[in-house]
Amino acid sequence: MTAVEIVEVSPRDGLQNEKRVLSTADKVALIDSAVAAGTRRIEVASFVHPKRVPQMADAEDLCAALPRKMSATTIGLVLNRRGAERALATRVDELGAVACASDGFGMANQGRTAEQTVDDAIEVMDMARAAGRCTQVTISVAFGCPFDGEVAVERVVALARRLAQAQPREIAFGDTIGVATPAHVTSLVSALRLAVPGIPLRMHFHDTRGTAIANAWASLQAGVRVLDASIGGCGGCPYAPGASGNVATEDLLYMLGRTGFSTGIDLELTKQAVPWLEARIGRELPGRQAKVARFPA
Amino acid sequence: MTAVEIVEVSPRDGLQNEKRVLSTADKVALIDSAVAAGTRRIEVASFVHPKRVPQMADAEDLCAALPRKMSATTIGLVLNRRGAERALATRVDELGAVACASDGFGMANQGRTAEQTVDDAIEVMDMARAAGRCTQVTISVAFGCPFDGEVAVERVVALARRLAQAQPREIAFGDTIGVATPAHVTSLVSALRLAVPGIPLRMHFHDTRGTAIANAWASLQAGVRVLDASIGGCGGCPYAPGASGNVATEDLLYMLGRTGFSTGIDLELTKQAVPWLEARIGRELPGRQAKVARFPA
Repeated sequence: MTAVEIVEVSPRDGLQNEKRVLSTADKVALIDSAVAAGTRRIEVASFVHPKRVPQMADAEDLCAALPRKMSATTIGLVLNRRGAERALATRVDELGAVACASDGFGMANQGRTAEQTVDDAIEVMDMARAAGRCTQVTISVAFGCPFDGEVAVERVVALARRLAQAQPREIAFGDTIGVATPAHVTSLVSALRLAVPGIPLRMHFHDTRGTAIANAWASLQAGVRVLDASIGGCGGCPYAPGASGNVATEDLLYMLGRTGFSTGIDLELTKQAVPWLEARIGRELPGRQAKVARFPA
Repeated sequence: MTAVEIVEVSPRDGLQNEKRVLSTADKVALIDSAVAAGTRRIEVASFVHPKRVPQMADAEDLCAALPRKMSATTIGLVLNRRGAERALATRVDELGAVACASDGFGMANQGRTAEQTVDDAIEVMDMARAAGRCTQVTISVAFGCPFDGEVAVERVVALARRLAQAQPREIAFGDTIGVATPAHVTSLVSALRLAVPGIPLRMHFHDTRGTAIANAWASLQAGVRVLDASIGGCGGCPYAPGASGNVATEDLLYMLGRTGFSTGIDLELTKQAVPWLEARIGRELPGRQAKVARFPA
């Protein structure tokens, strides 16, 4: 069995895009249930300005509320120096830096061009490393931008090359608005293999256009072994109202399990978290596994 | 550009699994809109007992109501001799026979074992050929059965071998309950290539577990060039209440279009049919393209 690591992102990317703000205690309970199901790496918070993302305003409190000894690595998302300072003042294990693949998204999201977001991400990773923390980086809108449209593979590869110099533990590629297709994934991954050999690649798919599982499959076929997912497929996309969120952890687990990949995460336990989460956020979630019969029974 | 043929199945498999029964006039309008969008092959009705499937009770009326000269081939689904007699009395271009891969499903659906459904399908195809009509066959529950669970690739291949002797124009493989995964698709198709060389393969996926687009992608990678789909992803699964229906035509078109496959079907025109269909069947459909921004703009 080939091992695949699923990074659970529901507490961050999921909840960040839900209208209803969960209490810190509920977030801890969500993280607990993911870890109890077998999750070994989990994005718990984003250290951004609470006015911009009120769902993440309790980042410090949440990190303080988590058990000191967890069987999972915690990740805090960080956009810049200020965020890194805040994250480093907590016990979060790993700093996830962010760069944008397009100027349009970078300006809208961070007031920075794509190249400037790379500067910021390198600064964040340098700070993390200097503080003895693990660090990695996500390139967002790597498959398309809601403002600039197409994002060329060559552009993403060039940004990845620059980021690789800061020695991240891995580089992630975010399909932030859910426009990627499997062939696009294959092209990007094969170009990255040549450009940044030896650096593990992680993929982050949104299911906005129903292609997330297909993109995950194409990633696996291309040798990617780390995938982001969120319980229930919670979340959404700020640029596509009503859209699905991240690929649902339980749906990904179904495909992986039936295909002979091992994740260490229990599908049935993950499914059990879905109705609990639906009750907290007040809406039905798009993930399928919690709604259908177990197969095989 | 490689050509892929999409067989539109919303008038049959889609509507058959919707609670609300559409009028014959509305069915004609649905077929018209699919053909206007570029569909060249469309499953219009099923010649089954009206008590079992009241949604298809107007099969003869519908066939009579369609224009004599259409730019699309019409398919009528037929389970047995009686169905074939009814279909041959209409102007439907092509008879789609059906065999079941499992005894459990065959008995529940047709009161016949798997091997007996193959006998029936061969009889149907022989009748069609004798009458000068085109014919093909679908093997249902080819990836798993709600009663018998796992369905072995070897079993499906053995049934396909028998069916191939009746010289169908193609053999289709139905993931009736939506349990297939891409690796399963790859295994089945590669086994079929050896077992029934030269016979075109068609794939029919339900999105019950969110894997339909991934399975379509795996099919394309394995060389399959004919895929079933239904506008809006309408339909469902009689064995999974509330489940999604067939893979949505417009979502498949998005992936195909972005990947450089040509279908001759216009994505924007297909999307326009979705809200119309939603109004007719009285519920929101699962297809994504009609809900999200066009990409690229």
